[in-house]
Amino acid sequence: MLGTRLREAVITIADLGEFGLIAAIAGRLAGSAAIVVGPGDDAAVVRSPDGRVVATTDMLIEGRHFRRDWSGPDDIGRKVAARNLADIAAMGARPTALLVAFAGPGDLEVDWVLALVDGIAAECREAGAVVAGGDTSSAGLVMLAVTGLGDLAGREPVTRGGARPGDVVAVAGRLGSAAAGLALLTAGHGIGEPGELDMLTRAHRRPQPPYSAGPQAADLGATALIDVSDGLVADLGHIGQASGVRIELASDLVGAPPVAEVSLLERAAAVLGAGPGRHGWLSWVLAGGDDHALAATFPARTPLPQPWKVIGKVTTGSGVFLDGRKWINAGGWEHFRS
Amino acid sequence: MLGTRLREAVITIADLGEFGLIAAIAGRLAGSAAIVVGPGDDAAVVRSPDGRVVATTDMLIEGRHFRRDWSGPDDIGRKVAARNLADIAAMGARPTALLVAFAGPGDLEVDWVLALVDGIAAECREAGAVVAGGDTSSAGLVMLAVTGLGDLAGREPVTRGGARPGDVVAVAGRLGSAAAGLALLTAGHGIGEPGELDMLTRAHRRPQPPYSAGPQAADLGATALIDVSDGLVADLGHIGQASGVRIELASDLVGAPPVAEVSLLERAAAVLGAGPGRHGWLSWVLAGGDDHALAATFPARTPLPQPWKVIGKVTTGSGVFLDGRKWINAGGWEHFRS
Repeated sequence: MLGTRLREAVITIADLGEFGLIAAIAGRLAGSAAIVVGPGDDAAVVRSPDGRVVATTDMLIEGRHFRRDWSGPDDIGRKVAARNLADIAAMGARPTALLVAFAGPGDLEVDWVLALVDGIAAECREAGAVVAGGDTSSAGLVMLAVTGLGDLAGREPVTRGGARPGDVVAVAGRLGSAAAGLALLTAGHGIGEPGELDMLTRAHRRPQPPYSAGPQAADLGATALIDVSDGLVADLGHIGQASGVRIELASDLVGAPPVAEVSLLERAAAVLGAGPGRHGWLSWVLAGGDDHALAATFPARTPLPQPWKVIGKVTTGSGVFLDGRKWINAGGWEHFRS
Repeated sequence: MLGTRLREAVITIADLGEFGLIAAIAGRLAGSAAIVVGPGDDAAVVRSPDGRVVATTDMLIEGRHFRRDWSGPDDIGRKVAARNLADIAAMGARPTALLVAFAGPGDLEVDWVLALVDGIAAECREAGAVVAGGDTSSAGLVMLAVTGLGDLAGREPVTRGGARPGDVVAVAGRLGSAAAGLALLTAGHGIGEPGELDMLTRAHRRPQPPYSAGPQAADLGATALIDVSDGLVADLGHIGQASGVRIELASDLVGAPPVAEVSLLERAAAVLGAGPGRHGWLSWVLAGGDDHALAATFPARTPLPQPWKVIGKVTTGSGVFLDGRKWINAGGWEHFRS
């Protein structure tokens, strides 16, 4: 046996075929009381006791939204699910189910796809949802289309358009960590990096949206609510525009724990030769996407329990301001960097 | 002016940018009483008064599911919507809303995308649904992920698994026309082809699923129901497998009007040098996909109004039989041709 290795038999999705792959995937998936008809029929049937269903869809393409050399299938699955489930929470709803359309090259290993499915299913569990159905197809690249469904349980949906002057602006979840992690990975740091910085690359690969903070915000009377995916300033800009108000942020609140993991961000900035302030690590907090925190506005004097943290206020006017200065590049991460 | 042409200013989706494109698309879309929150927020909110929602998703990729040189954007929009809406009808539900994720190359003309959206919206109207939301992204090819939602209005969903020996097998809608149209297009016939054969290529480009026959079948007591997308034999094979029964078809019922447009199919077979019978034009009817007819099983002696047409019966055993002979290549169109 010494010196001898059996060549592992790698099974590809082309070997298994469409129906074989669907059967293998379906075998990994748990049911739930919310699922009336699960995978394997023309469509799924999902309970939506409120009488209204919250629904959102995203398409994610290899090389644009994820990289197979930076993230394993489990992390990619976690991330594509998290991104979608966070959009459901950002309406004030509880996620119930995901539908996942998958396309990939025929020489992709079945085990890779099943690990992806496991990641999606695990992230669903975090949010109280399950995978209810999907579609498989072949393509030159891995492509995913994820549709999330959620139930409002009698709450009114919280849109982007209800913020009023006098409201406070608050955030639930971390900001800037995923962007710092992406910057580390882009610069060649990260995988196998010892210790704390690995938490930042991990935040990029596997965001942890505060799902329950969505329905909680609705119960607290939030006037507007959004998932921070384009970057805090850009996404608060969406609230400002939809509501016809100005958003004013204070950097000593945004750039401090628990919103910003300051000590980690400072260390990453030092490694990358970036400085402090709006052009240094604070830019990750203000303009970095992918953490999938939630941002909301609440009537002034609303007692805000954890994880909500006030970072600013709503006034009359338009635009997003930081410490009284207007943010010009309000288009999110990419615009900030240019 | 003679001999002079102003170069038309072509606006691409890269010119417009993501948010500009979303705004242009949203401007084409009608609302409906079913839509609580429409496009432009983190997620849509759609009424689902039954307390259960029917949901299905498909991914469609240029070159695999449609070709921009064979179909215009309006037809592609019609087709991707029809395919999805038919899956909702195939559970016995009424379609209420679509979510559409779109990705395409930056040099794609905005007008092409808007015509696609118009096609999707027009097909939604045929089915009583509207576009409630979506997502845009960039990619080297045009890719669409379409999610359909539907309401059961108190009906029990009709799955693939309820067929019983003694039931009759029936079809609503046309079979074989789209496959004949695809064969014509593949052989270089079709676009601009005069007269009747154009109806076949048109059936390929723009299927016309009998949406209302889905809820009608549920009301009539259908025991199983499926959208014919892989081909009649393959899809009835799914019912047979899920229900643990044998499906027996009669070629004089399947290969006759109104299920098969025989005179057109014979003409197309003549043009292409194909013969009659199971290896000629009848193969289009038995194994051709893309017409999106509905197939169902009903208890014997169920009075079946239009458009339902009996084509066979359910017996004990397994497999799909035609005139008493077992169909071997039960994998649908592609397998039949090989």
